[in-house]
Amino acid sequence: MFSQESGAVVELVDQLGRLPGIGRKSAERLAYHLLRVPKSEALALAASITNVRENVRYCETCFNLSEGPACEICRNPNRDKSRLCIVEQPRDLMSLEQAGVYQGLYHVLLGRIAPLDGIGPDQLTIDPLIDRVRTGNFNEVIMATNPTLEGDGTSLFISNLLSEYPVEVTRLARGITSGSILEYANKEILADALTGRQKL
Amino acid sequence: MFSQESGAVVELVDQLGRLPGIGRKSAERLAYHLLRVPKSEALALAASITNVRENVRYCETCFNLSEGPACEICRNPNRDKSRLCIVEQPRDLMSLEQAGVYQGLYHVLLGRIAPLDGIGPDQLTIDPLIDRVRTGNFNEVIMATNPTLEGDGTSLFISNLLSEYPVEVTRLARGITSGSILEYANKEILADALTGRQKL
Repeated sequence: MFSQESGAVVELVDQLGRLPGIGRKSAERLAYHLLRVPKSEALALAASITNVRENVRYCETCFNLSEGPACEICRNPNRDKSRLCIVEQPRDLMSLEQAGVYQGLYHVLLGRIAPLDGIGPDQLTIDPLIDRVRTGNFNEVIMATNPTLEGDGTSLFISNLLSEYPVEVTRLARGITSGSILEYANKEILADALTGRQKL
Repeated sequence: MFSQESGAVVELVDQLGRLPGIGRKSAERLAYHLLRVPKSEALALAASITNVRENVRYCETCFNLSEGPACEICRNPNRDKSRLCIVEQPRDLMSLEQAGVYQGLYHVLLGRIAPLDGIGPDQLTIDPLIDRVRTGNFNEVIMATNPTLEGDGTSLFISNLLSEYPVEVTRLARGITSGSILEYANKEILADALTGRQKL
């Protein structure tokens, strides 16, 4: 590897190698790339990382990413305030927004209950969620956690807590995915699809 | 995508997406990762990029990466000063160093002659190379450009220039790669291997 003389490069390769999906070789390739591009481009990336960490925080209401105390969705008067969609992470919210199929509000849990990873309900934003449902005028809470064991468990836990409030709790439909090939759907997917079959 | 509210995140995704091998989705994943890790870790990456671009430059002799006017290899009194190995990029030098099979000096061309990309000999460090060979006491110059059309062309060009100096010009051996499977070697590789066959 680099000698002490190039400590700055070693350090950069090290830092880049900590990013998810970036192995040793990729980190070296990225470091050389950053050494080769115009200096302004490399510094722009550094500034962008710093800017995000200095200025982006969580919305105080829904815990979406925001550059102010309230995110753009919470401040938007045109959103449907009778529906609340629960997601695990800001990027799940972003996927739904990109699809453009939902006009209600969100609540970001910032994780899922995962006993094996030592993550309990207290580490999520469940208390503020209950407060919102108690004081808000939501007709429906849509659980949109990931369709995994832990995501389903988290949804179940939350729907139990919400059962004492006059709100309908639903979850995203399960079934075969549009554009997929039936032959490759596994048993669980097909069971979901049959259970939830719809009238044509 | 993100609204104007999260301009900092949009900007970061954009910057990350410019890195080689990082597509849109990966850039988003990396941005969320940088938002999730401890702030100090994200800022350390930004500082590392800045530090590299502020402090790393090219060695004035061999054009290896260096944090001072002369790189560690050029300043090392134990290197064999009778041999000079020519490589295209600092990372090629690094590969050879990591292999630990060469004790001589290097000269980094910072590219290869590539007429189709508009890169001619003038844009490489060929003039300083000729100066080094003229004034130095090298017995041998080893061409270690990439075994590609452009790398081979660059080596040929340089060896022609060096023919007027009393120095032996060699190039890295071509043949089958150790650990590979003969069945998968193509015609060119097998031709190289036969042409360069060695006495057992």
